[in-house]
Amino acid sequence: MSELTVRAEKLDAADELAGLRAQFVLDEVVYLDGNSLGALPAAVPGRVEDVVRRQWGALRIRSWDESGWWTAPERIGDRIAPLVGAAAGQIVVGDSTSVNVFKALVAAVRMAGPGRDEIVVDATTFPTDGYIAESAARMTGCTLRPVTPAEVPGALGERTAAVLLNHVDYRTGRLHDLPGLTAAVHAAGAVVVWDLCHSAGALPVGLDEHGVDLAVGCTYKYLNGGPGSPAYLYVRSALQDRFDSPLPGWNSHAEPFGMRPDYEAAPGALRGRVGTPDILSMLALEAALEVWDGVSVEAVRAKSLALTDFFLECVAGYAPAGRVESVTPAAHEERGSQVALRCEDAGDVMKRLIERGVVGDFRSPDVLRFGFTPLYVGFGDVERAARVLGEVVA
Amino acid sequence: MSELTVRAEKLDAADELAGLRAQFVLDEVVYLDGNSLGALPAAVPGRVEDVVRRQWGALRIRSWDESGWWTAPERIGDRIAPLVGAAAGQIVVGDSTSVNVFKALVAAVRMAGPGRDEIVVDATTFPTDGYIAESAARMTGCTLRPVTPAEVPGALGERTAAVLLNHVDYRTGRLHDLPGLTAAVHAAGAVVVWDLCHSAGALPVGLDEHGVDLAVGCTYKYLNGGPGSPAYLYVRSALQDRFDSPLPGWNSHAEPFGMRPDYEAAPGALRGRVGTPDILSMLALEAALEVWDGVSVEAVRAKSLALTDFFLECVAGYAPAGRVESVTPAAHEERGSQVALRCEDAGDVMKRLIERGVVGDFRSPDVLRFGFTPLYVGFGDVERAARVLGEVVA
Repeated sequence: MSELTVRAEKLDAADELAGLRAQFVLDEVVYLDGNSLGALPAAVPGRVEDVVRRQWGALRIRSWDESGWWTAPERIGDRIAPLVGAAAGQIVVGDSTSVNVFKALVAAVRMAGPGRDEIVVDATTFPTDGYIAESAARMTGCTLRPVTPAEVPGALGERTAAVLLNHVDYRTGRLHDLPGLTAAVHAAGAVVVWDLCHSAGALPVGLDEHGVDLAVGCTYKYLNGGPGSPAYLYVRSALQDRFDSPLPGWNSHAEPFGMRPDYEAAPGALRGRVGTPDILSMLALEAALEVWDGVSVEAVRAKSLALTDFFLECVAGYAPAGRVESVTPAAHEERGSQVALRCEDAGDVMKRLIERGVVGDFRSPDVLRFGFTPLYVGFGDVERAARVLGEVVA
Repeated sequence: MSELTVRAEKLDAADELAGLRAQFVLDEVVYLDGNSLGALPAAVPGRVEDVVRRQWGALRIRSWDESGWWTAPERIGDRIAPLVGAAAGQIVVGDSTSVNVFKALVAAVRMAGPGRDEIVVDATTFPTDGYIAESAARMTGCTLRPVTPAEVPGALGERTAAVLLNHVDYRTGRLHDLPGLTAAVHAAGAVVVWDLCHSAGALPVGLDEHGVDLAVGCTYKYLNGGPGSPAYLYVRSALQDRFDSPLPGWNSHAEPFGMRPDYEAAPGALRGRVGTPDILSMLALEAALEVWDGVSVEAVRAKSLALTDFFLECVAGYAPAGRVESVTPAAHEERGSQVALRCEDAGDVMKRLIERGVVGDFRSPDVLRFGFTPLYVGFGDVERAARVLGEVVA
């Protein structure tokens, strides 16, 4: 037994979150792709069956009221809120992340003062954010300024209307300085929109504490909501009255069943809703979030850093020197919950890792991504993944 | 046994579609609210369980490829296509109806020639269409012209860019003249968008035959996809190259996994996609659509008209004269698959009907709506519903 194996056993034995793994459906595979699709929480299948058979099958239309379908977007939003440091009443769940980026950016531009006609966007971010930002700019008469995150402060000015930033980079796993960048955007008099897809559920976000204006995020990564589960939109309470949605569907109306020809936005976060909520996926997500009962995000963050530290150490121990190179920052304050390794033949390496029961993913052209979900990944998994990687690249 | 009861029995005995009812989960309730939420198809619970437990739970990330998740939007679109008279390759499933109305209307305006800056919308339609049309107009620099359907031809002109119409009115059940209005819009040089929420699955639509440009629809009414199941977008193949989406999410990219910073729209209907598809709801819908195997929409339409005819006859026979008044057109060519009855105390009447096992719905201020889904509603149901209504309003 190697020294790293012994270390892994000790770390697992001391892991206060280790018991949470039993709340997920897992097998002998080392699943390090929870940053793409979270594993199935054990509570989900039974809940979904109840939603389908009883709520839909037996109660049918009555469930919109009796099973709480109608209020699910805000109820589940309130369940996500503490995980991202938000008080209740500021988050609604629904639509995809892309659609929510559009809502948030257009609303942000509309909140900005006159003479502000530029949208600054992280050029290195997940592409959909850039594509949607381009459309939002085009449709609001703004100019899009794609810059690297480091260039953001220098790009801000009197013409900046809105800034769209990603909290953790999807490729490198770099954690950006949300408090500092938010303050910089505010100092320039602009509105900030944060994309939390790769941070929510993996580390503290502190939306309220840091005065974030708007935020969006998906729920199928570290929140384990299931494939394509609905995204969410955060609108800081002080800004809700000014949230002017480009997608004012009937679900965001002050009186949705009044069937009035004139539009009047609902008060509060509700105005971020659009059309009929997708109930099956939404209630699967609600069941998935029960895993978080009594779990502190701070404890999750501490374990996440311990996992990625240990993975980097194991990779250094098992892989031939220079064969793979981490593109994830070494500094804790700059690291999300994933490790990205650059490797010339990354596509082929990932294929062989998967064949050997270690599942991460490949991001073109040369990156191996490994996501560490502290709720169900243990230190033994980490050691095994690095060991198999070492064998594969040897 | 009354004459109407005898008639109902004979009609049920002669009903070629009667056997389809066994493919739904139903009980002793007469469910006439399938125009709001379709009943549960018996194939759905098992499919959803497989999607959750095996595809998500066991295969996890591999299912995007191995379980056909990634291609579900266009695959299921092709399954819906014959039900609305469309050849394959023109429909994608995803997002809510409201979001699809936005995509379609903005794209329609962008297809229209220069100097065209008006959007004509049916002012009597389901409100969300009007709200979204207002936003689309605002964001494309157009003027919104809300008119009644009868006024549409007179409202068309050289400045008309796009026209948004509802095939069947959600409140009255009136079926509008899709071929005639489409031709009128085209004669004016404009682009037409049809909302099929209340017609698809209940009557032939003939999108290709009538040269419709764009169409949207929900899948949870006559298509029985489940609460909030994803909507769909039809883009006529000849127009797909010019479809310029306001929501160009990464799923609509020509090379979605290239993670390229520049946007390039995918060819075909795919460019109507936006973000990550909502798999649980989408695959529940796919299972629900299996009910349609071997069923002709023409046969469904014939039964639908027979059901609504018989319902009107039974209501006339059972309800005191003048107590309720049909606001649904008597002419077959102007009738969808629902009957709307005006009744002073409609809210209270519907409550009592539901207590007695007859489920329709109430639309403010004074309308009782009864939807007839030919796949699972029989003539005996119709007679019983009218009889109970007669007793309730007596």
